[in-house]
Amino acid sequence: MSPGVSVMTRPRGVLAPVVTPFDAERSPDARRFVRHCRWLLEQGVGLAVFGTNSEANSMSVAEKVALLDALAEAGLPPSRMMPGTGCCAFTDSVALTRHAVRLGCAGVLMLPPFYYKGVSDEGLFRSYAEVIERVGDARLRIYLYHIPPVSQIPISLDLIERLLDAYPGAIAGIKDSSGDWTNTRAMLDRFQPRGFDVFAGSETFLLATLRGGGAGCITATGNVNPGPIARLAARWSDSDADAQQAALDRVRAALQNFPMIPALKCAIAHHSRDPGWAQLRPPLVELTQTQAGALLQALDAAGHVMPGLLEAV
Amino acid sequence: MSPGVSVMTRPRGVLAPVVTPFDAERSPDARRFVRHCRWLLEQGVGLAVFGTNSEANSMSVAEKVALLDALAEAGLPPSRMMPGTGCCAFTDSVALTRHAVRLGCAGVLMLPPFYYKGVSDEGLFRSYAEVIERVGDARLRIYLYHIPPVSQIPISLDLIERLLDAYPGAIAGIKDSSGDWTNTRAMLDRFQPRGFDVFAGSETFLLATLRGGGAGCITATGNVNPGPIARLAARWSDSDADAQQAALDRVRAALQNFPMIPALKCAIAHHSRDPGWAQLRPPLVELTQTQAGALLQALDAAGHVMPGLLEAV
Repeated sequence: MSPGVSVMTRPRGVLAPVVTPFDAERSPDARRFVRHCRWLLEQGVGLAVFGTNSEANSMSVAEKVALLDALAEAGLPPSRMMPGTGCCAFTDSVALTRHAVRLGCAGVLMLPPFYYKGVSDEGLFRSYAEVIERVGDARLRIYLYHIPPVSQIPISLDLIERLLDAYPGAIAGIKDSSGDWTNTRAMLDRFQPRGFDVFAGSETFLLATLRGGGAGCITATGNVNPGPIARLAARWSDSDADAQQAALDRVRAALQNFPMIPALKCAIAHHSRDPGWAQLRPPLVELTQTQAGALLQALDAAGHVMPGLLEAV
Repeated sequence: MSPGVSVMTRPRGVLAPVVTPFDAERSPDARRFVRHCRWLLEQGVGLAVFGTNSEANSMSVAEKVALLDALAEAGLPPSRMMPGTGCCAFTDSVALTRHAVRLGCAGVLMLPPFYYKGVSDEGLFRSYAEVIERVGDARLRIYLYHIPPVSQIPISLDLIERLLDAYPGAIAGIKDSSGDWTNTRAMLDRFQPRGFDVFAGSETFLLATLRGGGAGCITATGNVNPGPIARLAARWSDSDADAQQAALDRVRAALQNFPMIPALKCAIAHHSRDPGWAQLRPPLVELTQTQAGALLQALDAAGHVMPGLLEAV
């Protein structure tokens, strides 16, 4: 570890799994990506690029490396970045994680390998251990990614304990996208006191997580409603915190009637007056015109705005 | 299409999803791989390298390209190869598929993208279409890979019909690893008459598939019991076919009490007197010593042998 790097800022508050813009050829669009990331930072949320909502697994390792480099070259602070780096092949996870660590990213959000189902905790322990040992860098901070509805590979409390015992420096926290508050609560009680930072997987549980001593949330809707979510994370002990949470819930409810990733891109396309933003990679498909109209109306009714988006450069 | 390439041999009979040997550093071991593939060909089965049983998704695209090149450089016939090339990112699928086509492989076995769950047939159609259009080679022959217990992404009959209508040249067949004979039967009835070759996902359904007009099977146990399985495929109209099928079923039953991939590697390690063959990549873990002993005993009791394995070079 080089001098000056030893005091790392640990991510707290709100991060967005940044949606990835694609051009007309469905290639990652670095220009739109940098612009959206800069706007998110201005709104007070960090950059969990290459998450589920980023269509990260629909991109090759080389495409992700190029996007990360574009952010760094544009001068965006790696200390505000937590790229997703967990792939099915540990050789891919190692390559991407190593690149993120060298750029100085605050941490990485790591899916377990997700092709084989019903694998053992021993196998998952080895998967994470393999990456940690091969990256071999004291700056590595891994946030485990527990998202059983999509990955189908849960990260059990026993596995977390074993990883924390073996790699207390590298295992830094978790994003809990189980949608199961009992599970988040158990992680907060059992591991947050050991400095293991628990992030809720959506702002639905932001206030409860912060009151329980957790670190914040990493949430899809952070892409379109970043300011108000970041505000609650900063002022959760204010007297109007429950009212703030209720306002966030109304915006989320408007989105949740639609497929989330197409809906996020539709909202960004609309507010940035840039229809190209709606492009997706298969197997995801865009909203129909009817869906898009209904979504924008519902968001409007929930008081949703995206201030400063047009001015972001 | 260049002259002389137009008459392609379509794969029929039995193919093995070839297990991938790893060295002590868990890197793919081309020497052992070539040797095992050569033995499989001698036993009469084709090479469905990079399948589920190959731990294909635990390898990077570059690692798979290198292994495929090693087979070609060793002089093994690409006309007997059907590599798995379906990845979550179409850019990866395109790269691997293009390489396989240029080497002259008989076909490719293509998983749908498998990270996002509950995706639409429209999204899956676009996924396959994107690869077909980008590879843009008349020699491309795609065998769809239907394995819902692992991928969690079923390939519906309606999707097959739509793909066949749009790309009758490129869509060549399917491997049905649903384990649901009703589904295989429906595919045989509906699509085999259109020249769409149906392969059962295990030799359990080999005889039934052949009697139903299908092409054969692509089966894990082809790695350790290739000769007898290939024999049934060649002589399925003989009077002793049911007895042959029953003998195959006994060997499979001995394997099925254990995790399949570690069990296959254990059997090969034992019969080749090469303990290094048992190595796996995480998240898979090797059999315990007790399991290994029980497996070898059960295989022995089922009359299992691996003739010529030691002599294969």
